[in-house]
Amino acid sequence: MAGVNEGRTFDAFTGRYAQRTAGMTASEIRALFAVASRPEVVSLAGGMPYTTALPLDAVGKLMSDLIATHGAAALQYGSGQGDPELRARICDVMALEGVEGSPDEVVVTVGSQHALDLVTRVFCDPGDVVLAEAPSYVGALGTFAAYQAEVVHVPMDDQGLVPEALREAVARVGKRAKFLYTIPNFHNPAGTSLSDARRTEVLEICRQAGLLVLEDNPYGLLGFEGPPTPAIRARGGEDDVIYLGSFSKTFAPGLRVGWVLAPHAVREKLVLASEASVLCPPALNQMVVLEYLQTQDWQGQVDVFKELYRERRDAMLDALQTLMPAGTTWTHPTGGFYVWTTLPEGLDAKVMQPRAITARVAYVPGIGFYADGQGGRELRLSYCYPEPERIREGVRRLAGVVEAELELLETFGPLTSHPHLHGAMTPGPEIL
Amino acid sequence: MAGVNEGRTFDAFTGRYAQRTAGMTASEIRALFAVASRPEVVSLAGGMPYTTALPLDAVGKLMSDLIATHGAAALQYGSGQGDPELRARICDVMALEGVEGSPDEVVVTVGSQHALDLVTRVFCDPGDVVLAEAPSYVGALGTFAAYQAEVVHVPMDDQGLVPEALREAVARVGKRAKFLYTIPNFHNPAGTSLSDARRTEVLEICRQAGLLVLEDNPYGLLGFEGPPTPAIRARGGEDDVIYLGSFSKTFAPGLRVGWVLAPHAVREKLVLASEASVLCPPALNQMVVLEYLQTQDWQGQVDVFKELYRERRDAMLDALQTLMPAGTTWTHPTGGFYVWTTLPEGLDAKVMQPRAITARVAYVPGIGFYADGQGGRELRLSYCYPEPERIREGVRRLAGVVEAELELLETFGPLTSHPHLHGAMTPGPEIL
Repeated sequence: MAGVNEGRTFDAFTGRYAQRTAGMTASEIRALFAVASRPEVVSLAGGMPYTTALPLDAVGKLMSDLIATHGAAALQYGSGQGDPELRARICDVMALEGVEGSPDEVVVTVGSQHALDLVTRVFCDPGDVVLAEAPSYVGALGTFAAYQAEVVHVPMDDQGLVPEALREAVARVGKRAKFLYTIPNFHNPAGTSLSDARRTEVLEICRQAGLLVLEDNPYGLLGFEGPPTPAIRARGGEDDVIYLGSFSKTFAPGLRVGWVLAPHAVREKLVLASEASVLCPPALNQMVVLEYLQTQDWQGQVDVFKELYRERRDAMLDALQTLMPAGTTWTHPTGGFYVWTTLPEGLDAKVMQPRAITARVAYVPGIGFYADGQGGRELRLSYCYPEPERIREGVRRLAGVVEAELELLETFGPLTSHPHLHGAMTPGPEIL
Repeated sequence: MAGVNEGRTFDAFTGRYAQRTAGMTASEIRALFAVASRPEVVSLAGGMPYTTALPLDAVGKLMSDLIATHGAAALQYGSGQGDPELRARICDVMALEGVEGSPDEVVVTVGSQHALDLVTRVFCDPGDVVLAEAPSYVGALGTFAAYQAEVVHVPMDDQGLVPEALREAVARVGKRAKFLYTIPNFHNPAGTSLSDARRTEVLEICRQAGLLVLEDNPYGLLGFEGPPTPAIRARGGEDDVIYLGSFSKTFAPGLRVGWVLAPHAVREKLVLASEASVLCPPALNQMVVLEYLQTQDWQGQVDVFKELYRERRDAMLDALQTLMPAGTTWTHPTGGFYVWTTLPEGLDAKVMQPRAITARVAYVPGIGFYADGQGGRELRLSYCYPEPERIREGVRRLAGVVEAELELLETFGPLTSHPHLHGAMTPGPEIL
């Protein structure tokens, strides 16, 4: 660790930074990602949508038409809350999951990461508590840390967040909790979904405790089995739920267009916070999304994505089943991008990572998805980006690494825990 | 004020917001802007660049070509720090003002408002002090307030920030100050520029006090008289200056592409803060700017803008000279968008505003550009957007309103000060 300390002495600004920067730590994982992005490595790490499947010619033409007809407006400043027409179409999109919202309650954001940032900014003082699933989205944990909020994790099972555990956590934490952060559909990283019955129960528990629900739903329309389960917000949650949506997975992340739907009083504060943060979201990107929704078969394109991701999910689950050594377990996602894997007892996914990279396969160690150091045996596998054959090859390499680790374990016994292991507290586009 | 208090009782979330929301107040000016945007009103209020003058056909074609050849990447997540090629081109742009920076020290942001937010996030704890010109950019004041930083104003004269006053302020505030925020070129809202000699002096004063300089330079290339004055950063400020730039005025604000150039250690923290805030700036927008810089005569287009704004500046100064009642004074900008005007003694620009709107002319009252209630007699006039004939008509209407106010003053004496007047603490794209 000498290198780290030496590095610090070279920072002439030490002692001048805000206290919140103590929570902004770069992931140790980062350094490995430069290696992981080499073409010979199968990356099961990133959460990048397969944008190659988009109708690129149509999108390009749509943009040039847009600039030809509305260029001066598309290249101009826009409103802080976002384009009113786009906000109306966003309400149509949310209606597909049973959410009834008015355009006036919608704030367009620079991707839903920005919405997470604004909500945390508006609600969290240092020391406030956020309840979050265990594990939870690494980017959300990074944002909560940047606002010096404390995360209290609530366990999940294969039906998602466990209501009884939520009830206990709420009672334990009391008034310090500002909201429950939850990803009910095709959870990142857990791959599970909150069951229909539990959604209403979770809302009730939070309502009784006077706790807001922050419902983050980027993957809801990417389910492989039947129509979407109605959102938590759709169950009478108008006054208790702040809902986050995104076009990053249904259209394109490179546009950075997301949104938040919030009760009126909160919406006002979010607009002020957004203006202080970026003045306004980019007008061009909003108009591109609006045109895309209005002139393209965007739901047909979502079906294309679903088919593609389903095939990849099947390839991954099949390969895990066939190749993984006994003692390894994993979740069975019915949508989204991720499979959450638990290694046999005695293994450590972070310690194993450099060996996996050497074997030309990359994943994200689970520890980054917890605020409290849990998850040593866990790891996240993504199937969204590589083609099925590459996924099978990646799992084959990974299985070989796990087998080698198990042999080491049998020969030398378990590693003593490494004092310098800690999680990835900032998201990094590489690990989303 | 009954309405305001009543409104508050309807907010079910009162008492649950973060303390920082107390600093996020909507401008009272806002309500008037809906009226001000009617076509019959001449708006000298907004700071919107004249995007109609852009080569729209070329920009549209550039976008469709970009999507055809690099669509999957342009629509994908990018790096948190921003596209490396664009960062290299940004260094070329900064070199035009004498700044020698390396692409590694550049962070691409969602407009330079986002850069302001990130720098404040990284440096300011509640109660820290930011030194800023009097007046200062309303969007920066909003960001500082959102982080609960205290602004201490430093007076300006027609050569910009007064070094002697800066020296006094630095001595008075001491270690609580985190940085000096300054707009050296064609100041928003003051319209003045920091003289060449003072730039080195300001840097020296800050350096001796161990104080960073936050140099915000969106207008630097839009000077009407000769080449740009070298930036503060260009005077040996590598370790002491954080420099903010933007393509909003040289190309298009609707793309929201700005940047920050910072010493290496600070740059690392800014990237982490940006990732927690928006994950990554939009890839599409960065690639559009890169293509525009590489394939279009962008400096020729800046010349087009300069010529256009110079003609409008001339129209405004000429009309003010011809039409304004005695006792009114104003600045004489040599670039940028703004003329800062001081009304005759006894008048109040905020009180006068509804009457101006009735007379179909809009401006921004000066009080919004101070954190401490100064500026009652002052107002900002923008000449960037309306055509010269409309500018003349707007000034004619404004002169009539000022004359009528002076008659009222003569008849009834001065108004007693209004206790509820306060400034615009969030920028709002309307008033930039």
